[in-house]
Amino acid sequence: MQVYLDNNATTMVDPLVVEAMQPYFSEFYGNPNSLHTFGTSTHPAIAKAIDQMYTALNASDNDDIVFTSCATESNNWVLQSVFTDHIVNGEKNHIVTTEVEHPSILSTCKFLEDQGVKVTYLPVNEQGIVEAETVRAFITDKTALVSVMWASNETGMIFPISEIGDICKEKGVLFHSDAVQAVGKIPVDLQSVNVDFVSMSAHKFHGPKGIGALYIKNSQKLSPLMHGGEHMGGRRSGTLNVPLIVGMGKAIELATSNMEETAALIRVKRDRLEDAILELSETFVVGDRENRTPNTILISIRGVEGEGMLWDLNNGQIGASTGSACASENLEANTVMLAIGADNELAHTGIRLSLSRFTTEEEVDYTINHFKNAVARLRAISSSFAKQEPTKGGEVQQCELHHN
Amino acid sequence: MQVYLDNNATTMVDPLVVEAMQPYFSEFYGNPNSLHTFGTSTHPAIAKAIDQMYTALNASDNDDIVFTSCATESNNWVLQSVFTDHIVNGEKNHIVTTEVEHPSILSTCKFLEDQGVKVTYLPVNEQGIVEAETVRAFITDKTALVSVMWASNETGMIFPISEIGDICKEKGVLFHSDAVQAVGKIPVDLQSVNVDFVSMSAHKFHGPKGIGALYIKNSQKLSPLMHGGEHMGGRRSGTLNVPLIVGMGKAIELATSNMEETAALIRVKRDRLEDAILELSETFVVGDRENRTPNTILISIRGVEGEGMLWDLNNGQIGASTGSACASENLEANTVMLAIGADNELAHTGIRLSLSRFTTEEEVDYTINHFKNAVARLRAISSSFAKQEPTKGGEVQQCELHHN
Repeated sequence: MQVYLDNNATTMVDPLVVEAMQPYFSEFYGNPNSLHTFGTSTHPAIAKAIDQMYTALNASDNDDIVFTSCATESNNWVLQSVFTDHIVNGEKNHIVTTEVEHPSILSTCKFLEDQGVKVTYLPVNEQGIVEAETVRAFITDKTALVSVMWASNETGMIFPISEIGDICKEKGVLFHSDAVQAVGKIPVDLQSVNVDFVSMSAHKFHGPKGIGALYIKNSQKLSPLMHGGEHMGGRRSGTLNVPLIVGMGKAIELATSNMEETAALIRVKRDRLEDAILELSETFVVGDRENRTPNTILISIRGVEGEGMLWDLNNGQIGASTGSACASENLEANTVMLAIGADNELAHTGIRLSLSRFTTEEEVDYTINHFKNAVARLRAISSSFAKQEPTKGGEVQQCELHHN
Repeated sequence: MQVYLDNNATTMVDPLVVEAMQPYFSEFYGNPNSLHTFGTSTHPAIAKAIDQMYTALNASDNDDIVFTSCATESNNWVLQSVFTDHIVNGEKNHIVTTEVEHPSILSTCKFLEDQGVKVTYLPVNEQGIVEAETVRAFITDKTALVSVMWASNETGMIFPISEIGDICKEKGVLFHSDAVQAVGKIPVDLQSVNVDFVSMSAHKFHGPKGIGALYIKNSQKLSPLMHGGEHMGGRRSGTLNVPLIVGMGKAIELATSNMEETAALIRVKRDRLEDAILELSETFVVGDRENRTPNTILISIRGVEGEGMLWDLNNGQIGASTGSACASENLEANTVMLAIGADNELAHTGIRLSLSRFTTEEEVDYTINHFKNAVARLRAISSSFAKQEPTKGGEVQQCELHHN
């Protein structure tokens, strides 16, 4: 059995989405900007996808939703263009964000620091979130932008976006949220929140890789990051990617049309998996369940290095993660776990399991069984974990680490 | 019969490319940066695509080829990052480019002018190209970058890239070429040319939309445009788009593996079409055939407005263009034709026909016939063209403008 539990890194494209994209590769392939029928025959499909996006996000007709190549682009766009529009001219000089943002926010902030911008990186509390009042405390007259994730890629914890939005509005500061881990997993109602810019990515909700979007409230000013042929009303140049736009529209429709029901089903499986793992001694899950995206568990297991656990799970054909895939080639301590105050040893033991609507009961059963055995195996050879009786009967031999 | 003659705007994805991409949507969908088998099982496909790119372009192992979301991104990246790396710090202040570049170069230059950069826009000669010695004459001690297209999207004319590269090397100035219209159409041998950066786009050579690349000679320094998870060696962050990378690799292999033969076949059809149109009185084609990409014709027809011609061709289910699709929603004079010295009236009559390896003899026959009739129809109602006998027998009535 193969079990994919790394859906916060990327997801399988829903076969219905693949099917929807298919005609736009070799049949309706025209450039939407062309005046001939080959071009204009793509317009209904684009219009439908845009409609699916507005409906899923409850965006207003006054708002813009602009397709980008990914959320990394959306995040770079907001930060770099707020710099161009409000900081280069000396009007403002400060950005507020958090220590636990995705690398596409943190690296862009570092880049902007090199250009002279002051950036405040807010720490998270023991639940792994930043409280709204903490944001308030760090906004100054020179703050151009607050950028706070909607939900954490690593813990699944949901941030108080509505409250932060109200504070930003009151203070007259632009507010951006990287909602990559929220859109398609929890309700994101953009008319009910004071948020100026929202980033999202199709491949996190069973859409294709290579397409994301940026929501812009009230179609307000934001200089382009990509200059060129003035596509999408001058917002983002580059030939419109019809198949992937169609795919993103279909994917967001599928992810949100029965969200409550789908989320409840995922949550039941997630909770069962989590409960079973927590039966093991000295295991810790980050953040309250009720306030997490329904698919995510970030767990630490005292004495079990995350990389070793990943290796053992992979031998059992279970795909998991020690944290963000975007940093997973570095064998570093989990930054979110350090941020919430875990000691360095524990921060090296984080394992993230992220389910999807395609995760089955059988896969959960299989994972529970393999996971428990893996912990026993790895604790038996752990230098940092006091030797104790394996939690389940015997069979703990070092040579099993590499079994298949 | 439907005839697509707008292949410089975008192309049909080759069905073989669609087939090659297929397994990477819902079967091998892992994030290549993940450590588990779902992720690593994509690596051979990525390695193969990279290999196909290096082979097709004769790049050296010391060079970088970085996948981007499109050539607009590649072009923005080079210009904006040369600004960051060499101009912001006061070392240099000047960029040399041409009047006829793609909007993604021209608009980015305008943006950089707003940031204080001096930009020289070189005019083209009557052949529609910029001579290498003209470039030399405008390079100063403060020039950071020369950016000249490899071949024109509008005329197909091939620029003297090798000579310009030698001059830039001699002067110690960085050289970038937007090779979107060259790659896949004419030989592009990157080891034989002194060019530091080269932009390209898959959807111009029967690959998918939404993926391009930037070639970087000797893996030299160029700050990222997209900051984030340090993908592709820190060059371009954002989850690797496995299906589209596979598609671009397959597409460039198909486009270049029998290029000489394929180009010769396209050229014969193009020349036959061009000869037939030039039989009409007062028609003009821009640039010598020998020095053009084999698929392109930019033709002016005295007395026939480009938009009207487009409309009539479209009624005959022939897709053509008045110029760059990236600017085609604007009913302006063709900028290249103005640049080569056409009068304003003639510059409004430009029609671009761009063939592909999928264009058939029957389509050429059909187009010749429809084109000649269309010219007769439109000249008969032209206010600027002296009435004369239709070139082919009769049937010229205004009501026919809307026939199907």
